[in-house]
Amino acid sequence: MAKQQWRTDPREALKAGPDFDLAAFDRNGQPGWEGDRDGGEEYMARRGEEMSELQERLFAEGRSGGNRSVLLVLQGLDTAGKGGIVRHVMGMVDPQGVKLASFGVPTPEEREHHYLWRIEKQLPPPGRIGVFDRSHYEDVLVVRVDELVPREVWSGRYDEINAWEQKVIESGTTLVKVALMVSYDEQGARLMERLERPDKYWKFSPGDIDTRSKWPAFQEAYADVFARTSTEQAPWYVVPADKKWYARLAVTEILTRTLEDLDPTWPPATFDVAEMRAALQETIDHPA
Amino acid sequence: MAKQQWRTDPREALKAGPDFDLAAFDRNGQPGWEGDRDGGEEYMARRGEEMSELQERLFAEGRSGGNRSVLLVLQGLDTAGKGGIVRHVMGMVDPQGVKLASFGVPTPEEREHHYLWRIEKQLPPPGRIGVFDRSHYEDVLVVRVDELVPREVWSGRYDEINAWEQKVIESGTTLVKVALMVSYDEQGARLMERLERPDKYWKFSPGDIDTRSKWPAFQEAYADVFARTSTEQAPWYVVPADKKWYARLAVTEILTRTLEDLDPTWPPATFDVAEMRAALQETIDHPA
Repeated sequence: MAKQQWRTDPREALKAGPDFDLAAFDRNGQPGWEGDRDGGEEYMARRGEEMSELQERLFAEGRSGGNRSVLLVLQGLDTAGKGGIVRHVMGMVDPQGVKLASFGVPTPEEREHHYLWRIEKQLPPPGRIGVFDRSHYEDVLVVRVDELVPREVWSGRYDEINAWEQKVIESGTTLVKVALMVSYDEQGARLMERLERPDKYWKFSPGDIDTRSKWPAFQEAYADVFARTSTEQAPWYVVPADKKWYARLAVTEILTRTLEDLDPTWPPATFDVAEMRAALQETIDHPA
Repeated sequence: MAKQQWRTDPREALKAGPDFDLAAFDRNGQPGWEGDRDGGEEYMARRGEEMSELQERLFAEGRSGGNRSVLLVLQGLDTAGKGGIVRHVMGMVDPQGVKLASFGVPTPEEREHHYLWRIEKQLPPPGRIGVFDRSHYEDVLVVRVDELVPREVWSGRYDEINAWEQKVIESGTTLVKVALMVSYDEQGARLMERLERPDKYWKFSPGDIDTRSKWPAFQEAYADVFARTSTEQAPWYVVPADKKWYARLAVTEILTRTLEDLDPTWPPATFDVAEMRAALQETIDHPA
């Protein structure tokens, strides 16, 4: 049987364009992938190896004066699978090349600053793949839904975020913004699993039910995020998340293609290779 | 054929005791492991899965009020394989559970502070496995060999480090100190490989040859580290590093046994499980 593959580049199949309609979005779909789960897992493992080599090249470039980096921004409601992406997708590359940051409820110190202050501090250094588990987008999601600031404040943030991301891009960071969209039914099932398995209790918090009860408001807030901040240079990829294997496969593919486009190459030697070989040979022939 | 396994706990086989003799140490050995490379790799993959589950339990404990953590301190000369341990051993666990810190030449800001200042800032938070790629021990290794401070300064640091580590242990962190000891010949071969493969040039720096030329002084400095800081509560595990597969297998086993001894358990629910199930069921039956 022929190997399964992507029919459409997931960056095209999942990009939120001007006509994107979140209400009509199939959260159990697998846009661009014609194959099944087994084929997807096999494909993902293969691409993971390629991603891992590309990551090492990017890291080498960063160590040799390059300024490029990648930043994966992960958004999604509880149980959407953000942690699974970190574990199963980022887990395929060298931990040394990854800079992970999680953004929870702001600390008192963070609250005293502009909401982008804590975000900016976690931007990836040259050569790294940064991963944001939640991000500045919480400041137009939970902050909006829970009315933590007035409408006139959060409504100005979309343009502010676009301008800030533009600066980040100009500094050499390629943004990959991924929203994992789980269905209401699947979220219910996943939360119930956390209440049925003692090894999952720790992942549950009573607040999760409160947040779930605000589902329509969160969907509206996400729809506005896509409408207002899916830009040409930093588009949103909206990933159906009811099939975990598909979401992981899609994010692996998006990251790998992004790295392929960056095409990092092994840095040339900054020293005289022949001279260094001779000097090293001398230490081999005549130990101290 | 019977499955290969450890004949001796590597924490016993590799611990630097009072009689440890670095000059007589076989850097191509495989203490405690009677099997071969294939058996070792198979065993390591299996133990990696167990380590990964134990890591998740420790993480859950840390998220639920526990204060325990683990810190893997990695020391070794250039090419000893520190990066390979991070990639191949730590790469087996969830990146979210690992906090990695590399200590290179101190920055101007770091130099203005006590040498433990930058180290302390990188200690793992509760629930995490911290990894130090080089560490405060450089302050009695390269600092001593290159005479960056006078003897009377570095010679006082061994006791200071022991006292500091004691405090770290009392705060809930289990220290796992690993020194990867490569032979002079093997180091020469590995450095030469970096000069023969263009994809490895970036890992080489002309200073590596200078450091290698001080081999005897570094061996003496390492011997003193083991003699002065291999304490009952924070012993050094001296790992032969000429066989990369053995070093990775040994570190995996040491970490896994350390985690087994900590025996982290899934935290109990801090809420009424039945009540939460009912509340969740209500959101399933009657969506907002």
